Amino acid sequence: MSETVIATERKRRSDGERSRNAILHQAARLATVEGLSGLSIARLADAVGMSKSGLFAHFGSKEELQLATIEAAGVIFAAEVVDPALAEPTGIGRLRALAEGFLDYVGRQVFPGGCFFASVAAELDTHPGPVRDKAIEVIADWSDHLVAAGRAAREEGTLGPAEDVEQLAFEIDAYLLLANAEFVLSGEAAPLDRARLAIGRRLAEAAPSA
Amino acid sequence: MSETVIATERKRRSDGERSRNAILHQAARLATVEGLSGLSIARLADAVGMSKSGLFAHFGSKEELQLATIEAAGVIFAAEVVDPALAEPTGIGRLRALAEGFLDYVGRQVFPGGCFFASVAAELDTHPGPVRDKAIEVIADWSDHLVAAGRAAREEGTLGPAEDVEQLAFEIDAYLLLANAEFVLSGEAAPLDRARLAIGRRLAEAAPSA
Repeated sequence: MSETVIATERKRRSDGERSRNAILHQAARLATVEGLSGLSIARLADAVGMSKSGLFAHFGSKEELQLATIEAAGVIFAAEVVDPALAEPTGIGRLRALAEGFLDYVGRQVFPGGCFFASVAAELDTHPGPVRDKAIEVIADWSDHLVAAGRAAREEGTLGPAEDVEQLAFEIDAYLLLANAEFVLSGEAAPLDRARLAIGRRLAEAAPSA
Repeated sequence: MSETVIATERKRRSDGERSRNAILHQAARLATVEGLSGLSIARLADAVGMSKSGLFAHFGSKEELQLATIEAAGVIFAAEVVDPALAEPTGIGRLRALAEGFLDYVGRQVFPGGCFFASVAAELDTHPGPVRDKAIEVIADWSDHLVAAGRAAREEGTLGPAEDVEQLAFEIDAYLLLANAEFVLSGEAAPLDRARLAIGRRLAEAAPSA
């Protein structure tokens, strides 16, 4: 290929990627409102102003679209919440940053229907299959991060040596999930502050001096 | 009317009620799996083995069916969880019984998709209208019961005098919601036990001697 052809090809690919990413971002937003099962190619075509056949060129089936949407939402969740928190140098810092990052991501309404994964988990829980498995994978990773940060905090001595970090992660995750649910229902920030208070109290209680 | 006509009329009405209740019970079960929006008259007709026109005689529209389903689920939730707990003589007894009753109702899979109201709340949160309002009403009643039981417990001295009972209710409700979500996803009882542990710990901490 000539250099012009290569450059054109590169540009086409990059446009395709950009457009695919833009479509998936819109799909993830839509899924938190209409549900993943409400995410038909027709509806999405409408939302992004593309033809159905144009979207079919990107995603051959509804299931492919759903899987790609979960993957895209996972990338956004990592960028918004997980990765910044994991950059914290201490275990207790990571644990606090994961929780605060989550509440902040809910409050900023990165997705209009609250946390993407809380939303699709509630929808997919009773529908076994590859789409549900992919969503569960991201949720399991999230729990693992909370537990790993708690374990590191226990090792560094910022949590008591007898603290059950899996139980602690469950309780923190519980505050986050209810805060998300109530925030989306009410549109008010109070539940986010309730979760902050609960986490602060719970971590103070788990401190070795307590 | 002659006595025979009255008796026949009474029987007809009672059959109608029974059949309506049976339909609504099935509708509530179906809604926790397919979502309230997936609860079409056609699908429900299939599930209960009735004709669509037969169901239309009961419910004139999808919205009417959804509203009646929420009401029926509220009756079941009251009978299964709320009413037995409210019969406890003490505030702390009611608080514990509300929580334990909820976990038991989830564990017994009264609805195949977990708590009916957790399921529809996650679906309806972004869809304002009478159906959402009716579901929120039941959820608000539930929170009120937790707070009222906590307040009574504080007054009777089984919770410390400085305990913020709204915050306490939020935290207990959070454990219940995550336990429900994880139970439905995994089919395992472990999250229900995590919630029991969390509630026991939290109430011990809130005791006046603590």
